Amino acid sequence: MLLCDIGNTSYHFLKDDFDYKEDVKVFNPSDVKGLVYYICVNTEIKKILLKLNNWIDISKKIDKTAYYETMGIDRIIICESIQDGVIIDAGSAVTVDIVNNGVFEGGFIYPGIKAMSDTYKNISSALNYEFNFDLNLESLPKNSRDSISYAYLKLIYTEVISLNKAIYLTGGDSLKFSKIFKNAKIDKNLIFRAMLKYI
Amino acid sequence: MLLCDIGNTSYHFLKDDFDYKEDVKVFNPSDVKGLVYYICVNTEIKKILLKLNNWIDISKKIDKTAYYETMGIDRIIICESIQDGVIIDAGSAVTVDIVNNGVFEGGFIYPGIKAMSDTYKNISSALNYEFNFDLNLESLPKNSRDSISYAYLKLIYTEVISLNKAIYLTGGDSLKFSKIFKNAKIDKNLIFRAMLKYI
Repeated sequence: MLLCDIGNTSYHFLKDDFDYKEDVKVFNPSDVKGLVYYICVNTEIKKILLKLNNWIDISKKIDKTAYYETMGIDRIIICESIQDGVIIDAGSAVTVDIVNNGVFEGGFIYPGIKAMSDTYKNISSALNYEFNFDLNLESLPKNSRDSISYAYLKLIYTEVISLNKAIYLTGGDSLKFSKIFKNAKIDKNLIFRAMLKYI
Repeated sequence: MLLCDIGNTSYHFLKDDFDYKEDVKVFNPSDVKGLVYYICVNTEIKKILLKLNNWIDISKKIDKTAYYETMGIDRIIICESIQDGVIIDAGSAVTVDIVNNGVFEGGFIYPGIKAMSDTYKNISSALNYEFNFDLNLESLPKNSRDSISYAYLKLIYTEVISLNKAIYLTGGDSLKFSKIFKNAKIDKNLIFRAMLKYI
């Protein structure tokens, strides 16, 4: 069975236990001949897939009434997969969603690592550093690299920890963020496990 | 007397009580004929100003030993101007610096409003919103605009408030941030008052 989670930058496939990505700019979905069960937050690609009979949109099977209208289907389906906790999905954006006793409480959207790193680089070439995920979050920074790393990582850390819930970490950058959220349950393919329920 | 604080995007002048900005991309500093006392964090412009005899760099008069090597002179000079507190300088970047009993404790650098807004827009056209500065920071968001506004504003709010110090707000976007930091002392031209001490 072939599953696919389509985001802003890539098609993320799962074939049996093997997952791989294809760039949205170059991949042609009509090259896939078998059935594909998918969800998609990319509005341009949504239009293309509607014309392909072997691409099955499983978002129609999900009750979205507990969520808000413009909320990404990837966030919704992951929220539906847990009973209680904070879900951090670290991809091109980092979405943080809170589920309390099976009810979606709200969430927020933070820039992903690459997007935020580019932001600093564009503000000034003096801020062109990779984030330091080994940063000591207890101590105020006194160098440029740690000054941007602290802003990016400590601020989301404090907010998530203050929610006082179990933390689920997923998405392509989940391993990097696990250095900050040391007690999080890491499941890079949580989205696929969540999708399987609807097939 | 003409003072000038040069950042990554603009020359910010103060002439008597009147302040105005010139875009770094189009302004020619050799058009100014009188004396200008300046500080500059823009490395390209620094080189140009060194050749102009009427542009006086006051950064040489400042003892920088308590600060780190790559720290912007604008941040240093503002830290030197207060005895105790948190200084938020909201411009193309938002710098947050902590001074404790006259000693610099460290600080961090967050993206400015325009940079962060562009970041979200570039991640997805579905996140192309102006930030909502009237957001209720006590309640988790359930719409797209508030989901990015909460991430941008609540995270810096929580961090700054946790420092438990007097808050000084300066820079071009200080009025917008005063909606979040309601008890902050606002002084848009703090940098010029700080510069005057060295002239």
